[in-house]
Parts: sequence; C-alpha cells; structure tokens
Amino acid sequence: MVKRRRRKAFKAPTYEEVIERLEALGRVVVDQIMKGEKPYFEIPVRSLANTIWDSRRRILRLGSKKAIRDFFSINESKKFMQTVLMLSLMLRARRENDYPTIRDLYYTGKHTIEYVDHLGRKRTEETWYDQRESNAIIQDIEVMTGILREHMGIMHDAKGKIVGNVIIRSKGYRIDLSRLGSGAYAIPPNPDRLEILEVDAEYVLVVEKDAIFERLNEEEYWRREKCVLITGKGQPDRSTRRMVRRLSEEFGLPIYILTDCDSFGFYIYSVYRSGSISLSYESERLATPDAKFIGVAVTDIYEYKIPKNYIIKATERDLKRAKELLSYPWFSSKAWQKQLKLFLKRKEKIEIEALSGHGFKFLSHRYLPEKISTGKWIE
Amino acid sequence: MVKRRRRKAFKAPTYEEVIERLEALGRVVVDQIMKGEKPYFEIPVRSLANTIWDSRRRILRLGSKKAIRDFFSINESKKFMQTVLMLSLMLRARRENDYPTIRDLYYTGKHTIEYVDHLGRKRTEETWYDQRESNAIIQDIEVMTGILREHMGIMHDAKGKIVGNVIIRSKGYRIDLSRLGSGAYAIPPNPDRLEILEVDAEYVLVVEKDAIFERLNEEEYWRREKCVLITGKGQPDRSTRRMVRRLSEEFGLPIYILTDCDSFGFYIYSVYRSGSISLSYESERLATPDAKFIGVAVTDIYEYKIPKNYIIKATERDLKRAKELLSYPWFSSKAWQKQLKLFLKRKEKIEIEALSGHGFKFLSHRYLPEKISTGKWIE
Repeated sequence: MVKRRRRKAFKAPTYEEVIERLEALGRVVVDQIMKGEKPYFEIPVRSLANTIWDSRRRILRLGSKKAIRDFFSINESKKFMQTVLMLSLMLRARRENDYPTIRDLYYTGKHTIEYVDHLGRKRTEETWYDQRESNAIIQDIEVMTGILREHMGIMHDAKGKIVGNVIIRSKGYRIDLSRLGSGAYAIPPNPDRLEILEVDAEYVLVVEKDAIFERLNEEEYWRREKCVLITGKGQPDRSTRRMVRRLSEEFGLPIYILTDCDSFGFYIYSVYRSGSISLSYESERLATPDAKFIGVAVTDIYEYKIPKNYIIKATERDLKRAKELLSYPWFSSKAWQKQLKLFLKRKEKIEIEALSGHGFKFLSHRYLPEKISTGKWIE
Repeated sequence: MVKRRRRKAFKAPTYEEVIERLEALGRVVVDQIMKGEKPYFEIPVRSLANTIWDSRRRILRLGSKKAIRDFFSINESKKFMQTVLMLSLMLRARRENDYPTIRDLYYTGKHTIEYVDHLGRKRTEETWYDQRESNAIIQDIEVMTGILREHMGIMHDAKGKIVGNVIIRSKGYRIDLSRLGSGAYAIPPNPDRLEILEVDAEYVLVVEKDAIFERLNEEEYWRREKCVLITGKGQPDRSTRRMVRRLSEEFGLPIYILTDCDSFGFYIYSVYRSGSISLSYESERLATPDAKFIGVAVTDIYEYKIPKNYIIKATERDLKRAKELLSYPWFSSKAWQKQLKLFLKRKEKIEIEALSGHGFKFLSHRYLPEKISTGKWIE
C-alpha cells in the first residue's frame, strides 16, 4: 500500500495572525473616528436571500451583498456597540490565551447599561438578552475578518469521532489514530490546529449514526477495508465537517457518506457535500463537493429485498422535506431526482440497521464493500 | 508525584465466559422441558416498586422481587418467546464475533409470525413492534445473567470523553491519555474491556457540559491541576458512568462533579453518585457513591456575587424536580437539604458559564482549585 501523499498543506492562522486581524477590524473604526467620519462596519449579509448556489464549485456560498452597520443610525447603533464589545472580548481572550466558549462570551459581555432617557427617566438596557444575539455578532465578526471562530480559540461542543490509519500532530504530540483500541479520537472544536501528517487509506467512510460507528470500529472495518472512519452523530458539527473536508482536499481521498434512508439522512449528506444555508459563509472551508452518498438509497429497499416489516412509513415531515430537496439545485442530478421521486411515490423509509435483516455481517462485509468496488454511489 | 497504585484489578468477563453464561440460561429452559416441566424464566423485577435505596452502600439497587415468565401462561408466552429469541441472537452474535447495536438486534429479531386462529382465520403477529420491547428483553437477560450488554459485545451510542495522565491498554495498544493534543479519547461503549494501567492524578473532574470540557482541555487544566478530566455530555451514558466508577474504585481517586446550578444539574450529579431508577440493576457497577458535587451550588450565586443579570428564573419544571429531589434519601444530607430549600425559596438558577462574569480564567484558576483545596464540596 502506498501512503497517501499530501496534496496541499494546510496552515491554520496562528494566534498572532488572529490578533492582527481582529485588531485590524477595530482599527478600521478607530481610523473612521480619527478622520472625523461616522463610524460603521461593513458586513456581508448572512440571510437566505444572499445565499447562492455556486454551480461551478458545487457549494452553497454567501453572495456579495453587504450591509452597513452605522453607529449613528438609531436602528443600528445597538448592534454596532455589540460588535465592538464582542470584538474586544475576542481580542482579550486571545491576548490572554483564554479559550472561552460561545456561552462564556455571552455572559462576559452581558451587562446592564443605565441611562437617563429624553424625559429624564432612569432606564436600563442589557447589552444582549439572549445568546442568539451574541452568537449572531460572533458570526458577523467571522465573515468580516474571514477567520473562523475556531481559529480565534473559541470553544463549543464537539461531537465528531475519527479512527483509521491516520497520523496527526497536535500540541507537539504525534497521535496514531490506528492505535486507539476500542475507543476513538474525539475531534476537537478546532481541527485546523491538528496537522494531518500521514494517511494510509483508500477512502473515508462518514457514518451518520454513532452506534454504527462504534460497531464498525469494534470490528475494525477501517483496518480491513483500508479506510478512515468518521461520525458526526447526526447533523454534523463544524469540526466534523472540517475534518472530512481536509481529508478530501489535502489527501484527495474519496468521501462516502452513509446515512439512514430518509429525508433527514439525505439532508445530512448534502450538508457534508454542499454546505448548509445557515452556515453558507463557511462552505468554502467546510463543504466537500466531491462527497458521495453511499446509501442507504431508496432503491436499495427493493434491490436488497428489505423485509416488509423493516420498512417504516414516511411521515408528513419526511415528505415535505423530500419535496424541498427535490427542488434544490444540489439535488438536481438525474440519480438524486430518481431517488427522491421514488421516495415521494412509495412513501417508505428504512434505517441503516434494517440491513441487519440479512445478518449482522451484511453491512460491513457485503453492502459497503460491494457498493464501493462497483461504484454504486449517488452524486 | 507518586503514581496511583491500583487498589483492585478489574477483569471484564471474557467472551468465552459470556457465551457460557448465555448458554447456561438457555440450558435452564432446555432442562425444564427435558424433565417434562413447563418452561419458564425467573426474572428479577425491574420496576420502581422493586428499586430500593441501599443506605449502607449508598446506591439505588434492585430489590429481591422476582417474576416468573411462563411459556404456558397466555399473558407471558409472547414475552417468553421474545426472551428465547433475543437470547439466541445474542449468542449467535458472540459465537460469530459480531458487534450488533441494540437496534440491529431489534431488526434481526423482528419477523412476522403467521398463524391460524381458533376461528380458522389467517392472522399475523410481529415478534416485536417497537424497539422498547426488544430493549426490555435485553435488560431482562442482563439481570438474569448478571452480565451487562456491554460485556456481551452489544454496541450503542457512546458520548463520553476523557483526558489526563492515564495510561490504558485496549486491543493490545498502550494509549497515553495525556498525549492527545487538543483532542480527547472517546470512551468506547464497553469501557470494561479497557485495562487502566497507570494513573498519575490527584482527582477526577467530571464536567456536565462538553463545551466546558473542551475549554478545560484546550488550556490543559488537567495537566496543571493533576487531574483526570471527563465529560458525559449532559445526562451521562452507561460507559461514562462506568469509567468514573472504575477510576474511583480501582484507583481510589476522589471524584468531583461539576454541573450547572439547576435541578437537572443536581440530578446528573446524583446519577453519577447513586445510580438512576431506570437502571438500578446496574448501580452496583455504574454508581460511584463517593462522588462529590463541586458546584455550581445554589449558595455560590450569593457567595461568588454572581451579577444579577446572569441569574435565570427557575422554571416550573425546575421547581417540581427540586421538590422531588428534596424527598429522595440520597439527597437527605444537611448540606443538600440546605441547597435545595434555598433553590426552592429563591427560585434562581445559573449556568457554569455565569462564573465567566469574573473573567475567563475564574472557573479554572480560582473557583475549582479553591473549592477542592478547601474541601468546599457537597455530599
């Protein structure tokens, strides 16, 4: 076996660079004030209307629309101040080498401003009432600086796990992801600070469900089939998606996504592949346009003769979701249109585990190897 | 620093022993039949009524009530057959070295029985309609054999993560949990197959929230404070609880539980410490009666002067839960009664992150070290 050569080395911005970029953003405002101008931020709009499907690059990305957040506009001044406040908290954390969570940032920034209104009454106002407000500001700063919160040392839940013939380096340690026994490597909130040194694998298998990941890991599917095994536990978080993207981009590994055969599973596949609407500004770093859907496909229900009593009736929500998917440009391939139409017609779904009807070994010894060797995936 | 010596070596049953125990259970039924007796299983009752608080051992455990599951009783015959079916699936998996998930077992066992009723009509019946049915049978087999499903090689979701100066061995690999960089070791579904070789730590810090775990890991709190860091991500799963228990039992490490200051957080602490009602038959292996609650305590809101706007109003559900906790014998200590009564009186809760109001470093550089060194925990 030939080890995969790295195609492209990835370098996350250093914390010095992060500090520089955050300071530069602050300096823009300072400069405006020093020149006697009205201070404002110019922020790429993160709304659905400014999300576009880039058919050449096959990802969802943010359009070019920008908004002005003006300190002297009544509607915008609070948000302007929130932006300055959050920027200062982020900078403080980086300068003092702290790793706050997004919730820590919410609390640290939360305080009460007392003021006297135009009728002389004492009033109070919170800097923010809800974490949604502070999270939105974090996202604004991400799009303005082009630096992900992960690069800024901001922490959040991390769901992903990975195993396989991969050697990474983190904080100076060389970690061999094939020597973790029954356990796995929990992907940290910022996988860009991991260096992927060596990969000795033929493909990456991304599994929707954690229990299936555990099973395939326990039986060392990844060793037998020479692959890297990853799970994002349902709807994947940013770290898992970033890890998948890096393995595709830096090592040219084919990526196969295994999900349940239902609208939610199809959607999860599309989030790995094309990005999500709510995080479209990050697709350029998180989406993996070459990812392939390996199943479970709607046609598999019939081709693999899934017993009738393993088939579940699709819910109204499933059908509504499937109709939406049908109209998305990133599901416009002939193969996907066929799957979705069949799903809507038969109104039937199954789970990955339904394949166990053919025996516990069926999934890992036949279904997956067969689909990969004969190229029966869907794009 | 002196490495912790192992007090007690733990040995999980080997797969040979598991097969023997499962076969022995089947043989009981065969013997009954061969002797011309009516076949039956004798199953410890897993209901709330048979759950008792063992005040000496300070855990919730199953009482001695047993039920007879009789093949020739109309009410019991289906469950009897389900038990034999599940037992055969578990045995097959072990004999063939497979690692099915509980959902795989549900599907593999699911089939339609066709029969003709007393009026000559063709009828059908499913072996089970719902995974709750098959899961209950798995639990029955666990209590009858005294072998946990994990020992039987049955897989399920695993949420836990661990880092620290701990060396484990799994599948022949020696894994150093202090050399994982920004990542962590994802605890496998069956931590009993891990051998804990060495521990060089003074205590175990169990964190409710994953994001806090990630933060403390990134800043290497565990290295600075010489501890083992674990998270079970909210309500802990069996594997995380088992891992905590093993560190307490085998290495005599003090265990500190850090949760939000609300009824859910207090309950999570009690699950680690005393066990849960629904899994009381496993408390003997999963509960850690010496675990201590390190916070966030209700009194901390006032002692640490948490700013007013960080305090959240307790919901009706919080208050109802707190009233229940007040009456549980495992919350009967003076210290806990004081906390719960204050909670009910003030109707105020806070999150761990609220401590960030005193700066990002407050939790890890002051709150935790101070509480541990001055013994300000709650039992």
